[in-house]
Amino acid sequence: MGFTQRRFLGVKPSKALLSLAFLLTFMLVGSQGESNAMDNAATERMAEESHRQDSANLLIFIMLLTLTILTIWLFKHRRFRFLHETGLAMIYGLLVGVILRFGVHVPQTISDVILTCAVNASPATLLVNVSGRFYEYTLKGEVSQGKGHQVQDDEMLRKVTFDPEVFFNILLPPIIFHAGYSLKRRHFFRNIGSILTYAFMGTVISCFVIGLVMYGFVSFMKVVGQLGGDFYFTDCLFFGAIVSATDPVTVLAIFNELKVDVDLYALLFGESVLNDAVAIVLSSSIVAYQPEGDNSHNFEAMAMLKSFGIFLVVFSGSLALGVATGVMTFTKLRDFCLLETALFFLMSWSTFLLAEACGFTGVVAVLFCGITQAHYTYNNLSPESQDRTKQLFELLNFLAENFIFSYMGLTLFSFQSHVFNPLFIIGAFVAVFLGRAANIYPLSFLLNLGRKNKIGFNLQHVMMFAGLRGAMTFALSIRDTATYARQMMFSTNLLIVFITVWFCGGGTTPMLSFMRIPVGVDSDQEHSSSGSQRRSTKHESAWPFRIWYTFDHNYLKPLLTHSGPPLTATLPACCGPLARCLTSPQAYENEGQLRDDDSELILNDASVSDMYADVTVSTDASGSHTINRNRSSTTSTEGGPSDGVLDHELTLAEHEVAIRGTRLVLPMDDPVEH
Amino acid sequence: MGFTQRRFLGVKPSKALLSLAFLLTFMLVGSQGESNAMDNAATERMAEESHRQDSANLLIFIMLLTLTILTIWLFKHRRFRFLHETGLAMIYGLLVGVILRFGVHVPQTISDVILTCAVNASPATLLVNVSGRFYEYTLKGEVSQGKGHQVQDDEMLRKVTFDPEVFFNILLPPIIFHAGYSLKRRHFFRNIGSILTYAFMGTVISCFVIGLVMYGFVSFMKVVGQLGGDFYFTDCLFFGAIVSATDPVTVLAIFNELKVDVDLYALLFGESVLNDAVAIVLSSSIVAYQPEGDNSHNFEAMAMLKSFGIFLVVFSGSLALGVATGVMTFTKLRDFCLLETALFFLMSWSTFLLAEACGFTGVVAVLFCGITQAHYTYNNLSPESQDRTKQLFELLNFLAENFIFSYMGLTLFSFQSHVFNPLFIIGAFVAVFLGRAANIYPLSFLLNLGRKNKIGFNLQHVMMFAGLRGAMTFALSIRDTATYARQMMFSTNLLIVFITVWFCGGGTTPMLSFMRIPVGVDSDQEHSSSGSQRRSTKHESAWPFRIWYTFDHNYLKPLLTHSGPPLTATLPACCGPLARCLTSPQAYENEGQLRDDDSELILNDASVSDMYADVTVSTDASGSHTINRNRSSTTSTEGGPSDGVLDHELTLAEHEVAIRGTRLVLPMDDPVEH
Repeated sequence: MGFTQRRFLGVKPSKALLSLAFLLTFMLVGSQGESNAMDNAATERMAEESHRQDSANLLIFIMLLTLTILTIWLFKHRRFRFLHETGLAMIYGLLVGVILRFGVHVPQTISDVILTCAVNASPATLLVNVSGRFYEYTLKGEVSQGKGHQVQDDEMLRKVTFDPEVFFNILLPPIIFHAGYSLKRRHFFRNIGSILTYAFMGTVISCFVIGLVMYGFVSFMKVVGQLGGDFYFTDCLFFGAIVSATDPVTVLAIFNELKVDVDLYALLFGESVLNDAVAIVLSSSIVAYQPEGDNSHNFEAMAMLKSFGIFLVVFSGSLALGVATGVMTFTKLRDFCLLETALFFLMSWSTFLLAEACGFTGVVAVLFCGITQAHYTYNNLSPESQDRTKQLFELLNFLAENFIFSYMGLTLFSFQSHVFNPLFIIGAFVAVFLGRAANIYPLSFLLNLGRKNKIGFNLQHVMMFAGLRGAMTFALSIRDTATYARQMMFSTNLLIVFITVWFCGGGTTPMLSFMRIPVGVDSDQEHSSSGSQRRSTKHESAWPFRIWYTFDHNYLKPLLTHSGPPLTATLPACCGPLARCLTSPQAYENEGQLRDDDSELILNDASVSDMYADVTVSTDASGSHTINRNRSSTTSTEGGPSDGVLDHELTLAEHEVAIRGTRLVLPMDDPVEH
Repeated sequence: MGFTQRRFLGVKPSKALLSLAFLLTFMLVGSQGESNAMDNAATERMAEESHRQDSANLLIFIMLLTLTILTIWLFKHRRFRFLHETGLAMIYGLLVGVILRFGVHVPQTISDVILTCAVNASPATLLVNVSGRFYEYTLKGEVSQGKGHQVQDDEMLRKVTFDPEVFFNILLPPIIFHAGYSLKRRHFFRNIGSILTYAFMGTVISCFVIGLVMYGFVSFMKVVGQLGGDFYFTDCLFFGAIVSATDPVTVLAIFNELKVDVDLYALLFGESVLNDAVAIVLSSSIVAYQPEGDNSHNFEAMAMLKSFGIFLVVFSGSLALGVATGVMTFTKLRDFCLLETALFFLMSWSTFLLAEACGFTGVVAVLFCGITQAHYTYNNLSPESQDRTKQLFELLNFLAENFIFSYMGLTLFSFQSHVFNPLFIIGAFVAVFLGRAANIYPLSFLLNLGRKNKIGFNLQHVMMFAGLRGAMTFALSIRDTATYARQMMFSTNLLIVFITVWFCGGGTTPMLSFMRIPVGVDSDQEHSSSGSQRRSTKHESAWPFRIWYTFDHNYLKPLLTHSGPPLTATLPACCGPLARCLTSPQAYENEGQLRDDDSELILNDASVSDMYADVTVSTDASGSHTINRNRSSTTSTEGGPSDGVLDHELTLAEHEVAIRGTRLVLPMDDPVEH
């Protein structure tokens, strides 16, 4: 068995030669005591060099992100809508990948030092005894076979390659949490039945349709002799699962900017958020599907059932854990924003870690934690903390998302074991198209049977069109690229993401006008003008939702937050003492809310709409303008109002403007005392 | 030469046994093809187990931080001031350390698998060929000699041990950047001469005094036979350098809360921020001091000069780089807060990476980048971005600081190679005391010769008392714990940090009252009431500062920011065209500022004072209150003003309140048109 040593000496040849000289000296001398100091110096120098190189590599990514931000600013400034920041990040990533691949050549100053050694296993940690000193090595991963000796060439490329787990454990959680935390709750709950149908049934349908179509293609490829390795039916299903996670971030950004129909937005966003969770758990259940027989990749009922059981356990476990920690963050730290924000951040993170430590899926837990926190905890936060947490997660989401997309672009050239198979790629595009169609059209037909507010054909076409693939598909497929099948999937998925993001993302605006989707619908105006429509939120929905809604509003909200009616008003009289001790003092101020059921959903909605800061400003200005007009008309009819009243009302108004920053309805029936 | 394999199988014995069975099977079978799948499964299982364990370990820290936050909230709520959050974090860390050390026992299920192999060096990357499959290992570090076989026992402890570079590359940068970004600029610049003296001369004096005293102690210990290893004079100096970095975060928090004399605050804060930078560069120069002769640790002029040269080059290089990137972030993205904040964050980070990649000190670069950005870039940001960036770095600073302090507590028990030497520890405390005294008293005497606003003896005593040691000392001493000398330093430094943070931190309030330091000085009031004092800011300072100040205000500020007078007004007439093209359109609105020199320093000061959010609210409320009174008195004397004017003025006022959130002076000479 061979034992290969490899070291990287940076781009500067002079430094590399110096280190080489040190190493050679050390190797030639060979004795222990004498060379200790020299060895130390050499190791230190190498560690320093390696650190410097790491910094430079990370700098490449930071620069990429900076460049993306600057360009996207230019685009926003000039109102170009055909390219979203994620699409742009990919392009820059591609460029840097090309440069690294073909432009930079690391001088090959050191030849291999091949040493023979008996090693039977690959433990996670290795202790290497070098002349009596122990060095610890940690397992980084398997290097693809047969490449052991050519790797030096590609050191630079390998250096900019991240551990795939980084995506899952560092970059995805903030993205997914932010998605959960910024769900447009009112519209989300109004459409919850449809969203759940698309997300759960739709993803499963899509997964199996894609899997079956791919199996057909792969069988055909085997016959034609185009397949260079194994590709089982489970691999096809796995491919179906990971490619079923949609990520229409590009489309949604345009929807938000153009103020497209809120229901369409809610359907698309809700579906994409939830189907990520379904796709993750589905793919891990498929991986867990291992029939008993050693080399059989055939169907087996028991294993299938077991996989299904795993799906249920992991999904419900993650959901329960996320909801539980989300509910637990019942903060009373309103007076100290910094502490509150920090606590909020830590709780979200510990949800993720807890789920991972328990063997559940952290990303799914974090998603439901986000939704729960938005629904309950958010109401307990002080107004400043509400802003801070929103802004923090918005920033993290922005950075993580653009990082993933630029890394995607880079990896098209930097990844070492791409397998581009034209037939497979064509098959994949066909399968993805069919899978999406089999998800949207039949389910929309079924849903329309029950919905009052039908999903029209034009909306269905837009949903079909908005089935982009993104960060989740990428993260799931880069996680394991050990086998031929997985490598082919990874390469194909990259192409699917590129094409869908650029073409579908860029074509959104034409698509909207072609499909005659109403644009410029002000969701704010919509529900401030028609009071009756507001009230119908609840009645539009199916009865299970209505029951839950009433229960939530009357019991859960008062129990878990400071908002909503006090429990003393909603619980039966016999529970009086219990209700009193569970109700927070602030809640008594909300006693009137018991009758106005939807008010808090509407307020929340307004607060979510200022998620996109550029929109806020206009809302803000018009908001204060409205107040002023009202104010001045009262004062003019009143003649000269007394200082005290004016003073009081102005303070009130300005206070509200300062803390809320959104629409404000001034109490017109304020008693003017003279 | 030996080759030791070691693997960690988690805390659950059942899982560990299962994995063991897999491994044994694999090892016994030995053949390649058959066991491939089994091997894969076993590796995957182990990776999963290891990941789960990592999550659990990280969760411990998150829980620690959460606990700290909750307790500190209780303390703040009850106005306990004797224990700061960092001190509390250390206590919790200590408790968890004790539990991990004595409470949890990892079952020792696996015996060592020792394989022999010829390895001559320890490269950064190892390729291990296991039955034809290549696994990549990365160097984690050296394990202390002779412990190679007992390590399994302490796996749990080693698992919660972070790579020391994490502190330098991830946790310190936000802390240091935040310190730079939140310098109280007006008071900082007023005392800049004294601050620089304390920070540079003082740190060097302290370093050498401590080094000499320690050398005396160590020599004595050698005579007595209490020294278990080598300890050279360079080691003493190194100790002096790393222990000279003060970190009075505890004291400053109390100062801020009690509103202690702003000059004292500025002196202490400025000194502590800058001496961190000096201490880092000083310690790295001392490490670089290597006389030519192989085993001579004697004095040598050439090597000394070289070290001094390194100090100058690294320090000025880092400074220049930090200032350059700080100045470069000349953003024009005012309309898009999210992009602006993201860009700001990325630029700060890339400063760090760039400096590290160039071989300078990232932390120092980041510090000066922060100061520069606070001085120039901050003025270009939109008001919302100003808030966002401040809040973001405040949060990062809070989390990183508490994490470091809780890790410090934990490491007292989890670190494997503590060397507690009572004599050395006593010596260190004496040396630290003497070093601080030799820094403060003589320099204060010298400074008082030149200062108009003398530093009184009570202030000197407080400064002496506030010489706490903290995060920087810890990070510098944990960075390298390979030799006996370094281990002893590390253990001693831990104790120094604990004692100073708990005792000096806890004793701040009594100390202040004992020294009769004025408390409750409102820095806002101070400069809003006395206009003459404001103007004296400039004249109080020495002439080099005055020249720089004028240059900065008239040329640099207008060139680099939107604030300050336009260049067309300050540059001589011959440079007209150049001036016009370098001045931003916004700057013309500030033309009046040319005469009122200090106004922008004062505004900045107000904006810094709302760094602590609980203070802001009151400022804000009083601010709007003032406006209202002015407004209403005008309207009442005017009788019934026309709608238009009122409308306009109110919009103006509210707009200002919304964007600025601080004090606001309404233009009283606004023409009322009727």
